[in-house]
Amino acid sequence: MTSTPDLTNPIRRDPDYQTRLEAAVTDQVIASFGHARTDRLRTVMASLVSHLHAFAREIRLTEDEWDLAIRYLTDTGQICTDTRQEFILLSDVLGLSMLTVGINSPAIPGATESTVFGPFFVENSPEFALGESIADGVSGLPCYVSGRVLGASGGPVPGARLEIWEADADGFYDVQYDETKRQARGHLFADDQGAYRFWSVLPAPYPIPADGPVGRLLDAARRSPMRPAHIHFMVTAPGYGRLITHIFVGGGPHLSDDAVFAVKQSLITDFVRHPAGSVGPDGSHRDTDWYQAEFDIVLAPDQRS
Amino acid sequence: MTSTPDLTNPIRRDPDYQTRLEAAVTDQVIASFGHARTDRLRTVMASLVSHLHAFAREIRLTEDEWDLAIRYLTDTGQICTDTRQEFILLSDVLGLSMLTVGINSPAIPGATESTVFGPFFVENSPEFALGESIADGVSGLPCYVSGRVLGASGGPVPGARLEIWEADADGFYDVQYDETKRQARGHLFADDQGAYRFWSVLPAPYPIPADGPVGRLLDAARRSPMRPAHIHFMVTAPGYGRLITHIFVGGGPHLSDDAVFAVKQSLITDFVRHPAGSVGPDGSHRDTDWYQAEFDIVLAPDQRS
Repeated sequence: MTSTPDLTNPIRRDPDYQTRLEAAVTDQVIASFGHARTDRLRTVMASLVSHLHAFAREIRLTEDEWDLAIRYLTDTGQICTDTRQEFILLSDVLGLSMLTVGINSPAIPGATESTVFGPFFVENSPEFALGESIADGVSGLPCYVSGRVLGASGGPVPGARLEIWEADADGFYDVQYDETKRQARGHLFADDQGAYRFWSVLPAPYPIPADGPVGRLLDAARRSPMRPAHIHFMVTAPGYGRLITHIFVGGGPHLSDDAVFAVKQSLITDFVRHPAGSVGPDGSHRDTDWYQAEFDIVLAPDQRS
Repeated sequence: MTSTPDLTNPIRRDPDYQTRLEAAVTDQVIASFGHARTDRLRTVMASLVSHLHAFAREIRLTEDEWDLAIRYLTDTGQICTDTRQEFILLSDVLGLSMLTVGINSPAIPGATESTVFGPFFVENSPEFALGESIADGVSGLPCYVSGRVLGASGGPVPGARLEIWEADADGFYDVQYDETKRQARGHLFADDQGAYRFWSVLPAPYPIPADGPVGRLLDAARRSPMRPAHIHFMVTAPGYGRLITHIFVGGGPHLSDDAVFAVKQSLITDFVRHPAGSVGPDGSHRDTDWYQAEFDIVLAPDQRS
């Protein structure tokens, strides 16, 4: 039998009592993770629970909103397939992906900045010789990209491996047409002077997939789903930290409202337009307009060593 | 062409620069929600992004952990069906459900405390007259529950509606056997004095579904999936706030480690055991052992009025 409440006291809200009760729930949940199998899990869950609860208390989460959140997360999981990862997209548009890149590739003054990896990298890309075209027939005006891979001290990094991938003039990656396609994608190796060069096409801006839960969020927030035009680089060399980055086409749209917050000022590069009939940097005669970009890459020392 | 970095400066980590860069990502994401279609969405997203990013920075989230989190959330969404809601379960074991109940049903001294709703309520339960048995043949020793529904001033709440649902002696709800079953579940109305009474069965402790992502988390945290034995109540009456609560079987296991943090001291009730051959409170002759619990319910005024 419960004790009879003291009904001589008027019933009233007591903000302090309420605050203490809410804090007690959080303390109890954190304590429940106190015997986790690893110290790391205990640390992670304590921080997660603490921030999750602080969020709910701060906005005074209503039961309808909680219900909406449950359904939103469920929809996000259910739309995922082998070729669509809506939770990565959600992480991207909430800036968590970009923050994670920043935490794991700390900014090192002088070194080229990193940015998001994105969902379109594939293993085992075709290899190209320096100066070849990786485009393999995709739509878009030809674009010649060259530069040097340098180390911290300013010296060249001979033989550095560069993985390159990019969207075509219609804003699509090869694998979006057909998972087995490999176009505007490849790897090559810097020469003895650390120099690299390749032909591809001028990339176009494109929207992230906006027909699912992430698209609904962007719409409710009146946010654009567009990404500015860019070329992906992943550069590796023994003794240096792996660099994952983009170069962005300077002057193009969406540099200031990239849906995934990946733009860094230092990664915006001039893509210079040349007329049809001119001669390319490699002496080739160009029968269409073409672009040229130059981008030097400075690798930081391997942080693990 | 990028500007050449100043290579005369030694490359070094700069913690302040790193901190500023990480904060800048968060500011940028919050700003991106500045034109949301509603003020509420803007407020909610600013708080969510702020806490999500603070969490990632605080634990220095690694890329492997980020990847694990993406896969965990995806698995959680993909195991959901019409009859299984793994994200609600996740919210439950992280204490978010209980916190949300607390935020939306603020503690009011003297009034009966609320607790989690749970996933086993169903609309349109059968109606019973006072004193009838709602058990309808489920396993378990008979249990007689009675009490009064009172208002803030201590006076009775005549005609209050009580919805009751509970697990059987094997720890299962009717709908877990068959979605169309209605057993150990029903509603009844308090009499003119606010009194209520019904027969049912003594409920048993039971595990929450532990064969999915939530079970993996509990295992990694060495946490029990068990809930202590309880009977669900939802009590409504015009002019009073809706009360959603449980009464817990005093002295039973898992009162101190409820997997969903729903236990409140004031909701733990004595369930007194009586021998076979004795006479029930309603004069019935009992041919098995039986239990009796008494629980008075105090409703708070309707907060919306």
